[in-house]
Amino acid sequence: MAGVPSSSSVPTTPLLKDELDIVIPTIRNLDFLEMWRPFFQPYHLIIVQDGDPSKVINVPKGFDYELYNRNDINRILGPKASCISFKDSACRCFGYMVSKKKYIYTIDDDCFVSLLLSSLLFSTGIFLPRVVKTFARFFETTSVNLCTWPFFRSTDLSRNLVAKDPSGNQINALEQHIKNLLTPATPFFFNTLYDPFRDGADFVRGYPFSLREGAPTALSHGLWLNIPDYDAPTQLVKPRERNTRYVDAVLTIPKGTLFPMCGMNLGFNRELIGPAMYFGLMGDGQPIGRYDDMWAGWCAKNNAFHQILTLKLRLKLLILGTLRLRLARRWEVVNTVICDHLGLGVKTGLPYIWHSKASNPFTNLKKEYNGIFWQEELIPFFQSATLSKESTTVQKCYIELSKQVREKLSKVDPYFGKLADAMVTWIEAWDELNPSTTAIAPEANGTTDKK
Amino acid sequence: MAGVPSSSSVPTTPLLKDELDIVIPTIRNLDFLEMWRPFFQPYHLIIVQDGDPSKVINVPKGFDYELYNRNDINRILGPKASCISFKDSACRCFGYMVSKKKYIYTIDDDCFVSLLLSSLLFSTGIFLPRVVKTFARFFETTSVNLCTWPFFRSTDLSRNLVAKDPSGNQINALEQHIKNLLTPATPFFFNTLYDPFRDGADFVRGYPFSLREGAPTALSHGLWLNIPDYDAPTQLVKPRERNTRYVDAVLTIPKGTLFPMCGMNLGFNRELIGPAMYFGLMGDGQPIGRYDDMWAGWCAKNNAFHQILTLKLRLKLLILGTLRLRLARRWEVVNTVICDHLGLGVKTGLPYIWHSKASNPFTNLKKEYNGIFWQEELIPFFQSATLSKESTTVQKCYIELSKQVREKLSKVDPYFGKLADAMVTWIEAWDELNPSTTAIAPEANGTTDKK
Repeated sequence: MAGVPSSSSVPTTPLLKDELDIVIPTIRNLDFLEMWRPFFQPYHLIIVQDGDPSKVINVPKGFDYELYNRNDINRILGPKASCISFKDSACRCFGYMVSKKKYIYTIDDDCFVSLLLSSLLFSTGIFLPRVVKTFARFFETTSVNLCTWPFFRSTDLSRNLVAKDPSGNQINALEQHIKNLLTPATPFFFNTLYDPFRDGADFVRGYPFSLREGAPTALSHGLWLNIPDYDAPTQLVKPRERNTRYVDAVLTIPKGTLFPMCGMNLGFNRELIGPAMYFGLMGDGQPIGRYDDMWAGWCAKNNAFHQILTLKLRLKLLILGTLRLRLARRWEVVNTVICDHLGLGVKTGLPYIWHSKASNPFTNLKKEYNGIFWQEELIPFFQSATLSKESTTVQKCYIELSKQVREKLSKVDPYFGKLADAMVTWIEAWDELNPSTTAIAPEANGTTDKK
Repeated sequence: MAGVPSSSSVPTTPLLKDELDIVIPTIRNLDFLEMWRPFFQPYHLIIVQDGDPSKVINVPKGFDYELYNRNDINRILGPKASCISFKDSACRCFGYMVSKKKYIYTIDDDCFVSLLLSSLLFSTGIFLPRVVKTFARFFETTSVNLCTWPFFRSTDLSRNLVAKDPSGNQINALEQHIKNLLTPATPFFFNTLYDPFRDGADFVRGYPFSLREGAPTALSHGLWLNIPDYDAPTQLVKPRERNTRYVDAVLTIPKGTLFPMCGMNLGFNRELIGPAMYFGLMGDGQPIGRYDDMWAGWCAKNNAFHQILTLKLRLKLLILGTLRLRLARRWEVVNTVICDHLGLGVKTGLPYIWHSKASNPFTNLKKEYNGIFWQEELIPFFQSATLSKESTTVQKCYIELSKQVREKLSKVDPYFGKLADAMVTWIEAWDELNPSTTAIAPEANGTTDKK
């Protein structure tokens, strides 16, 4: 890709220009794209406008995009539009549904003055006087977006706002996600030197050779420098905590382990896992917020499985000096949720983005309040959720899961009955918009037979 | 600790001077200790001399140590000495047995010329001419130990050989292991910002609050810069690969996930997990080598469990504005091997040591040959191993596991019958030498009831 800066000197990874859409939920003008221009401009953007559809969203010139507001969502989905959240960034999953590409990258749009000032501080090393800090603090606690101010629209300035690695190079987050998605994951056994498919790394001594082929990567979960993705209680307790540690690693989250998936900086293979990436019912009219990405992550990943691996190795010495190896492998996996059920991998770690603005912890507590309690029942639910062998596609898995949500979680709160309905509606809408694609698992139920 | 250099400016971690032994298996003079002097000198060393007991091992002056050769082992254990490997670094586990401390740190003694030259190269940035490289290569492929040469015995020089972090500070590996062991692990749920107990980090949004107490850390697995811990096939295929990536992270290996444990740079809580740290039968007279640490790791950790977590949360609004939370939690865990069975945590990542010398891949292939095949049956075995609720101590778990090894692995090779016997002998010997200590699990079978 001539002209596209890259963090690596030799761009060996295909950039998937025609196979990836960038999905951005927004309620404001997208001036933040200026800083991502060198990395995002070659790609198609799907912008999902949240809130008042009459508001005009400005997108910087030169970007190739389609934009959907609430009226568009209602028009396209009809009554099924009820499954798409309103006044919540959970609406971004509508973008996953209308995309026709194999891969999705989704990123938040919060480019605020605090980012600009922090970045100035960061890049110049200047200690701003107290008065300027107070000014920054004011904008941090309000929603005034200074990206729209002419001064801050300067591309050269805003480019600095993309996160930098410890060598000072701008991080091409998208390129790293693509690397993560195009190389296998290793969910069946832990590799202590992290991603064995990275240059300069490999599987360590003791890693079973039969597992080194890995599994297809469905999800790439990127992290955040500066403002960590904390819940409201932690935000309240640690208002000044910043993430300054750049951990130079990508790793696979092992099969059978649940994790808190954040939607702020996320790549995934839409063909493999798209229909499970439903961000639930959040925001307007719902008793919960800020659990949209968590919900998608828990549905997509899993925990608590009972894995019976029977591996039969037959070594026959046929002719002197010639070994013939007959390897018969059989996996039976019970109790998994989608990715683990289907034998797919989830990676986390690189790339980092610079997360500029801590959202208001008081507002967040209101949104999270019910979730804090419900979550204590959701985790055991997902840890013990079992999918049948008949569920060989993501859609089938998801419908089966929705039934269990209704059955087991409705007693926690009637909300989960509504959510279960929405999960079914989501799959119906997905299939309507994507009639020809059925995400067939490469190894449904994790079953492999190699002879 | 006045006079003890530390990588952190404020040494907040207790150094456990009287609670930790350093165990070193060796066949040679321990001049390598010179480079570790600032970090190890305050501690007591247990040196297990491998091979010919008539050979005199020199230990640099100023170290407090006890040394056991084969004659000592035979004298102390009598017929039970059969469980301790001969002519293999697996004999190190005898040191775990005779220690009376709560914590163990074990490290290999391979300080060779290649390390010294590499270090010179590394620290000075000088590109040595080809002739010097050839000279280094020669010593790398032989076993000549130049640490004993007067020039290389210079303390100032050898100190450089301890690994450095990216800021150029010497890494106090022991201090980091102690930090890892003294803070809880998080085996039940993955935290995307790595160790939440590290300064500047915490649990991220979506991490269940009921799990934030963590679990006691039993094992701290450190990594290696320079020569990675590869198996013989990988060594043969990638003779020049070096690990140059410093990943600034510690993470808990999730419950239910097996990993390849390397004994080169390892800390553990002897009270919690000591009896499971048996390094098996390797070396002289055995059909396998280089699987000693792996075996201990697989016995200590586990995979394949079926976790049923039932969590009941009752929230009662008693008085206006007062919330009373009644939290009843119940875990039932089936199918686990020791650490996971007992609800203990295993951490991996920091600290790094500088691993100087690649062992000979041809020799290694001979040692590993059988293991490469057997391992494909061992992993499924450990993944499906079930321990009963009656096994509430590490010793009981280990005896139960030994029965399963005999029953299920003897058909793979008669060696495993012998190994099962040795596992029993090991526990008998352990109990004989440690009559008063019984490693009682804090939460046997991972069962907690909080009301």
